[in-house]
Amino acid sequence: MNEIRVFSPATVSNVACGFDVLGFPLDSVGDEMVVRKTKAKGISISKIEGFDLPFDIYKNVASVSAMSLLEVAKPDFGFEIEIYKKIKPGSGIGSSGASASGSVYAINELLGRPFNKLELTEFAMKGEFIASKSEHADNIAPAIFGGFCLVKNLHPLNVLQLPTPTDLYAIILHPQIEIKTSESRKILPKMVPLSDVTKQLSDLGGLVHGLHTGNYNLIKSSLNDHIIEEYRSKLIPHFDIIKSKVLEAGALGCSISGSGPSIFALSKGNDLATEIELVFKSIYSKSNINFSTYISKISSSGVVTI
Amino acid sequence: MNEIRVFSPATVSNVACGFDVLGFPLDSVGDEMVVRKTKAKGISISKIEGFDLPFDIYKNVASVSAMSLLEVAKPDFGFEIEIYKKIKPGSGIGSSGASASGSVYAINELLGRPFNKLELTEFAMKGEFIASKSEHADNIAPAIFGGFCLVKNLHPLNVLQLPTPTDLYAIILHPQIEIKTSESRKILPKMVPLSDVTKQLSDLGGLVHGLHTGNYNLIKSSLNDHIIEEYRSKLIPHFDIIKSKVLEAGALGCSISGSGPSIFALSKGNDLATEIELVFKSIYSKSNINFSTYISKISSSGVVTI
Repeated sequence: MNEIRVFSPATVSNVACGFDVLGFPLDSVGDEMVVRKTKAKGISISKIEGFDLPFDIYKNVASVSAMSLLEVAKPDFGFEIEIYKKIKPGSGIGSSGASASGSVYAINELLGRPFNKLELTEFAMKGEFIASKSEHADNIAPAIFGGFCLVKNLHPLNVLQLPTPTDLYAIILHPQIEIKTSESRKILPKMVPLSDVTKQLSDLGGLVHGLHTGNYNLIKSSLNDHIIEEYRSKLIPHFDIIKSKVLEAGALGCSISGSGPSIFALSKGNDLATEIELVFKSIYSKSNINFSTYISKISSSGVVTI
Repeated sequence: MNEIRVFSPATVSNVACGFDVLGFPLDSVGDEMVVRKTKAKGISISKIEGFDLPFDIYKNVASVSAMSLLEVAKPDFGFEIEIYKKIKPGSGIGSSGASASGSVYAINELLGRPFNKLELTEFAMKGEFIASKSEHADNIAPAIFGGFCLVKNLHPLNVLQLPTPTDLYAIILHPQIEIKTSESRKILPKMVPLSDVTKQLSDLGGLVHGLHTGNYNLIKSSLNDHIIEEYRSKLIPHFDIIKSKVLEAGALGCSISGSGPSIFALSKGNDLATEIELVFKSIYSKSNINFSTYISKISSSGVVTI
């Protein structure tokens, strides 16, 4: 096999009570990438469509990730990457994570799978780092492993795959405003009241237990963020009314995806997901902000060959 | 049935990463209580053996809990309580929780079980409050439900029963020094660094996942406290060396039980538990502090009729 085309999913990270540790991938929103072997060693980017991203291999997350893999694999040939970017950079649904995950997954396939998913996640994190200036895996890990992933530890990396109920849908609202991850990190509180920590712990514990037991009521009562949301939501127009209305409509939860500006909601079943998307649309269409919405099941596979 | 004798277990709360939300009961350490119907309405305490506790029904947690139950049940008779106290008050292994849980469990049995475990927990919390001056359920809930319990929410009360691996043993070291719960709460930090919150969240999520999957390696890597232990451990002589030595011996984890001074460790299997108890003894026998040690399986039933 000399060439491969992959779908690399958008991902929701943070996931309310799971700040910095929890994420899940979408199965119908993501980038496509074509990767093919080249005689010349090293990595090149031959095409980027969709959004304006650097061809400089030291600045593009896809190539930086790929090079970190090649440093270990040391093949006597190279790879060129075509990126069909569908996730807008800076959207908060793991745009850089998708690029980083897609390239290492594709190259690993072309090399005959010398690396496991944990190793691929580590390579991809090198690319993610140049985009977000912080080391984290809560977009990469779900993009590579699939399903709800808890990043238990970064050094050494340990990723836990949590059970993902099959009837769970994510609904995304992407307001087309720019919030850079690095800036969004700056407004985070450095210190958190102990009483809020306790609430977040019980909610995260509840969510993990709820996913294991398929208890939607528990999942619903656990999808709260007592730590970050109140700060970051100020950067997202109409967040409070959006959240209030989608919860009223029956959403299991609603919070900020990644560092924003995208908002995600979760629902049991597609019918409710459609209603929630209508709520998103009805509120944002009255604003003067361009926006996109998506409905997607949670991907159980993550990045896949297509 | 006019009389009942119950065993009400000691409990370990906080459980490293589970500050204020997680606890488990011991199956071989606890109080015994005899409760019998009386013609006179209300509650009386007719005997207290083992430790010096108030006979005043408004000051003893067993009677305060019992009265909160009777306020709802309104039987046209009453109950007298005998308390055979084996857990020293102020030990950090749920002495007041055992008294509070035992009395409501016993009365509920004598009344023909009008209340469920959640309701019994709520009654018992009324008693626990007068002992600790704070509202919490992470001793009471495991004493009443059995097994690892996560207190998801206090209002309305929601208790999650987590799977409890059958081969899990708790080893307790109780240094006979006094640390009052109310004082131990005062030294807690009011604010916690966000980076520590993230670590605690990933560890609690890891522990819940580890209990569900029976993964002892994961349980071991999750039993950390990044928030409280460094403060409270200063009140417990030799804590650091104790912890270091029992982890070296192979313990799954070691931290402070409740608000201390008791230290708990967890082990897979009884053989290792015996070794860990020896470590406890060898270090404390060189000090001039009186101490007790216990080895116990984790109780899957909580309070029981005997």
